[in-house]
Amino acid sequence: MIIEELLFKPPNALVDQSLHSHMGVETTNGDGFGLGWYGGGEGPAVYKSIAPAWGDPNLRELAAHVEAPLFLAHVRATTGTAIQQTNCHPFRHGNWLFVHNGVVNGYHELRRDLMLAVDPSLFPGIEGSTDSEVVFNLALTFGLDDDPIGAVERAIGFVEATAERHGIENAVQASIGLSDGERVWAFRYSTERTSRTLFSSCDALAIRELHPENERLQRLQDEDRVVVSEPLADLPGVWESIEESTVLVVQPGPDEHHPFRPQAPAHATAV
Amino acid sequence: MIIEELLFKPPNALVDQSLHSHMGVETTNGDGFGLGWYGGGEGPAVYKSIAPAWGDPNLRELAAHVEAPLFLAHVRATTGTAIQQTNCHPFRHGNWLFVHNGVVNGYHELRRDLMLAVDPSLFPGIEGSTDSEVVFNLALTFGLDDDPIGAVERAIGFVEATAERHGIENAVQASIGLSDGERVWAFRYSTERTSRTLFSSCDALAIRELHPENERLQRLQDEDRVVVSEPLADLPGVWESIEESTVLVVQPGPDEHHPFRPQAPAHATAV
Amino acid sequence: MIIEELLFKPPNALVDQSLHSHMGVETTNGDGFGLGWYGGGEGPAVYKSIAPAWGDPNLRELAAHVEAPLFLAHVRATTGTAIQQTNCHPFRHGNWLFVHNGVVNGYHELRRDLMLAVDPSLFPGIEGSTDSEVVFNLALTFGLDDDPIGAVERAIGFVEATAERHGIENAVQASIGLSDGERVWAFRYSTERTSRTLFSSCDALAIRELHPENERLQRLQDEDRVVVSEPLADLPGVWESIEESTVLVVQPGPDEHHPFRPQAPAHATAV
Amino acid sequence: MIIEELLFKPPNALVDQSLHSHMGVETTNGDGFGLGWYGGGEGPAVYKSIAPAWGDPNLRELAAHVEAPLFLAHVRATTGTAIQQTNCHPFRHGNWLFVHNGVVNGYHELRRDLMLAVDPSLFPGIEGSTDSEVVFNLALTFGLDDDPIGAVERAIGFVEATAERHGIENAVQASIGLSDGERVWAFRYSTERTSRTLFSSCDALAIRELHPENERLQRLQDEDRVVVSEPLADLPGVWESIEESTVLVVQPGPDEHHPFRPQAPAHATAV
Repeated sequence: MIIEELLFKPPNALVDQSLHSHMGVETTNGDGFGLGWYGGGEGPAVYKSIAPAWGDPNLRELAAHVEAPLFLAHVRATTGTAIQQTNCHPFRHGNWLFVHNGVVNGYHELRRDLMLAVDPSLFPGIEGSTDSEVVFNLALTFGLDDDPIGAVERAIGFVEATAERHGIENAVQASIGLSDGERVWAFRYSTERTSRTLFSSCDALAIRELHPENERLQRLQDEDRVVVSEPLADLPGVWESIEESTVLVVQPGPDEHHPFRPQAPAHATAV
Repeated sequence: MIIEELLFKPPNALVDQSLHSHMGVETTNGDGFGLGWYGGGEGPAVYKSIAPAWGDPNLRELAAHVEAPLFLAHVRATTGTAIQQTNCHPFRHGNWLFVHNGVVNGYHELRRDLMLAVDPSLFPGIEGSTDSEVVFNLALTFGLDDDPIGAVERAIGFVEATAERHGIENAVQASIGLSDGERVWAFRYSTERTSRTLFSSCDALAIRELHPENERLQRLQDEDRVVVSEPLADLPGVWESIEESTVLVVQPGPDEHHPFRPQAPAHATAV
Repeated sequence: MIIEELLFKPPNALVDQSLHSHMGVETTNGDGFGLGWYGGGEGPAVYKSIAPAWGDPNLRELAAHVEAPLFLAHVRATTGTAIQQTNCHPFRHGNWLFVHNGVVNGYHELRRDLMLAVDPSLFPGIEGSTDSEVVFNLALTFGLDDDPIGAVERAIGFVEATAERHGIENAVQASIGLSDGERVWAFRYSTERTSRTLFSSCDALAIRELHPENERLQRLQDEDRVVVSEPLADLPGVWESIEESTVLVVQPGPDEHHPFRPQAPAHATAV
Repeated sequence: MIIEELLFKPPNALVDQSLHSHMGVETTNGDGFGLGWYGGGEGPAVYKSIAPAWGDPNLRELAAHVEAPLFLAHVRATTGTAIQQTNCHPFRHGNWLFVHNGVVNGYHELRRDLMLAVDPSLFPGIEGSTDSEVVFNLALTFGLDDDPIGAVERAIGFVEATAERHGIENAVQASIGLSDGERVWAFRYSTERTSRTLFSSCDALAIRELHPENERLQRLQDEDRVVVSEPLADLPGVWESIEESTVLVVQPGPDEHHPFRPQAPAHATAV
C-alpha cells in the first residue's frame, strides 16, 4: 500500500494529528516525527526529521512513492528532551522497530539507573536522550528476540520498580508499537491504569461490507490491520479500542490479544 | 531590555502563541519564525529559523542574552509557500525591518504581476517566495524611505487594484509592523475591513500605576511600547486595540495615530 | 537497483564527491543535495535536504532501501543563492526531473529578464531563487515536452542572448541532466566551450567482460548506463567523456549522441 | 569586539577553516558548529547549528551584531557520533564553556565506563552522545570549579587509564579550550604527544608595533589574546605555538604557562 493512503489522506490522518490531536495528551505534536517501513533492501528503513510532520515536503514525497506492506509512523511532542533526529521514533535494532506514545515520569532522576541496566553491548548504541530509547534498550536487554511480550513486561516492570525506589509515582505511560517485520505488537498500558488511547481497525472483511461506498476501505486486504492512537475517521464499526493492560498481536493468520502484566526481572531489581 | 522579558516570560508570550494562538486565524504558528533587533554592529540583526519557535534552543539563548531597545518578532503559519528561512519575517532592507500578519488572497495568480511592479533594482534581492516579501518590496518601490505610511498605502492599494483586475475579492489581510530603528509603524488593515487583531500597550506611566505589584510592568520605561497580535497577559487597562484602517506610529515623544487608506499609485496601475 | 550501489558504495561515489570533489570547480559540495527517482506512486519522487550529503542519515536510509530503475542525484555548492530545499536539485515538473551543474554568470543582474520570459502559467511555480530553476522553466516554456533538445537549446540560447545584451561574458556553464522517466538527456555545454566534466559509462556488456572480478559491475544490465560529473572509480575502459557541445540520450535501445547548439527563440529575444 | 572581526574577516578565519582547513586532521569541518560568548543576560550564551558554519546566515548575523569581550567558537568534523545540536561545542555548565578539538579513541567501547564515572548529579544533564561532552563532565566531576587545570588532568588521566584497561592505545587527542568568563585555559595535549596544533597570539603591544599598517591588529587592546587551531593569517611575529603537554592561561594581568600532566584520580581508577 502506498503509505500516504494512511498517513495523509484520511480525514484525521496522523499528519493532521501532528497539528491538531483530538484525543492526545498534547494537542500539537510538532517536535519531529519518524516513519519506519519494511520494504526493499536489508532490514527496515527509517526516515526521521525534526520538522513538524505537517510541513515536511520529504515526508509527503516518501508517503506518495513508497509502498510497504508494514510501516510504523510517529509524531512527537517532547516531554523535555532535545528535538533531534536521534530522539525521533521509531527506534531500530536489527529487524525491530519500536515507537512509544507516553512518558517515564521523573526520567531526569531515573535516567542513570535505567541506562546502567542496559546490556553493556547495547549501551554504546544509544544515540539519543529519550526515555523511550532506553525503554526499548531495556526490552532488548531483557530478551526481546525470544519473548517480545515478556521482554516488554520486564522492561516496564523494571522502570516501575526503579521509580518506586526513587519515590516516583505513576511511573510509566506506555502505549507502544513494536514490529519485527512479520508481526506488530500494540501495547496499551500505564502504571496508573489510565492509559493513552489506542485503537485497532476491525476485521477487514467486515469493514468493507459496512462501508461499501468508501473506496479507501474497499482496498483493505483481508489481513490488513491499522493500529492508531486516534481513529483516522469517524466511521461506525471500523475501530475498536485496545483494552487497558493488554497487547494486541497483529500477525499472519488470526490476531491475538494477551494481558500485559509488567514485572521487574529478578536479577535486575537489585541494581 | 533583555528580549526574553517579552518573548518568553509573559503568560501568553509570543512563543506560547506559536503553539497555541487564541485570537489568531491559525491556532498553531509552527512554520518558522524570526527575530529582528537594533543593537550592536551596523543596521538591524535578523535571526530566522524554520523550527517552531517553541522548540528552538537558539531563540531561547538569544532572547536571554541580547539586549535591544527595539525589536520585532514573528511566528509563521504558512499560507502555502515553502517553509524556509528566506520566507521567514522580518524582511530587511537597509535599516528597515518588516513583518506581516496576513495574506494576499489569490497570490499564486497575482505573483507575477506584483513582482513585475517591483523596482528592477530591488527584484534580484527577493530571496523567498512569500506574498509578504513582495508587499515589502512594493512599499520600497513606492517610496518607503521618504513617506512610510504613503508607501505602504500605495503598495496595498496596488495589490488591491491588481487583485480586482483578476477578479479576486478580499485582496489583502495586512496587519503590518515596520521599523527603521527609530520608529515603529503598526498598520491594521484588510480589504474587507475585518482585520486581524492588533494591540498596543498603553502609556507606561499609567500601566505602572495600575499594576504596582507586577515587577515586569514596573520595569517599563516611560517611552516603552509593546505592539502585539494578542495581549501578552490579561491585565485590565494595559492593552488597547489598534483601530481598523489605522496606523500607530511609536516614536520618541508622543506617539501618533493616522488613518490608513490604500490607493494604487497612478503610474503603476496600468501595468 | 538499490540506489546506494551507485550513491555510496563506489570508491569515488557522489556522496564522497560532496566532501572531496576531484574534478569539480568546487572541492566541497556541502550546500544541500537532492535525489529524484522513478518508482512507486505517480510520477517521480524527490528527496531534498540542506544538510551535506555526506552527513544525512535519511539519504543513507533511502539509498539502502529504495529500488529504482532510473534516478538522478545532485550535490550542491551554492554560487550565492540561499541554502534551502527549494534551491536543491532535481527540479520537477510533471514527469520531468532536471539537474544542473553549472552557473549563469551575472545572474543577479539577469534574473528579472529571465524570469519575465518564463511562461506566466509556470511563473508562480518557481519556488526557489536559483538560476538553475529558471533555466529549467525556460526550457519548459520553449517546448520541452515536444522537443527536449531543442527546448534546452532555446533556453540556453535565450540566456546567452540576454547576457550579451547586458554585456556579460561567458554566460553559461551548463552540464545538465534531464529525464522523463524513460530517457535521460545528458548535456555538456558552456558558452566559452570549457565545459565542466561529464562522463558516461560504456556499453554494459563490454564493461562486464573487461572487469569480470568486479561484482558491482557484473550486476549491470545490458541497458544500464551511468552518467556522472566524475568517474565513480578509476577503472580502465568503463568511462567515456561526453564531448563538448553535445548531448547524450540514454534510452531503451541504442543510445544517441547529438550536437548541442543553443539558439535564442526568435519570438523571445526582443523582450 | 564585534565577533565577525575574528570569525569571518581574517584571511584564514575560522569560518573559512570550516570549508578548507590547512592544518587540521580533517580538511572539511562541516558537521555543525557552535559559538559561546559572555555578554548580556545571566551566564554565557550559546548558539549552535548543524549547518556548516560557512553557509549559516544566522551565524553571520550574530557575528556582525554581537559584541563580546570573550567568546569561544568551534567547527565540527564528527568522528562518528550524530550531527545534532546537542553534539556541537561549546558545552556549557554554569559559567563554564568547553570546546574540544580531538577525539577519544575507542570511544564506542569506553563510553559506558566513562559515563559511569560522571557524578550522578551531572549524568542526567548529558544531552548529546559525544566523547567531548563526557570529558567535560568528567572534569566537572573531578573538581573543575576549584582546580581547573587539575580537574582536566584528572579527567584526561581517567580516560587514559580506562583506555589502557581496555587495551586501547593513544587514548586521547585533546586540544581543549575552557573558560569561566574571566579566564581562558588553552590545553594542548595528546596521549602520544603528537597533539593537534594550537596557537596563541603574542603580546598585543608587540603585534601593533610589528604591523602598524594592519587596521584589525591596531584595534587589539593590550590584554587581548586570540587562541586558535590555525593562525588566522600568515603574519610574522603574531602567532606562537602552544607547546605540547602545556596549558596557557589567558587572564587579566600576565598570562601563565603551566605543564599539563594527566593523572587518573586515585578514587576513580578502580571503577
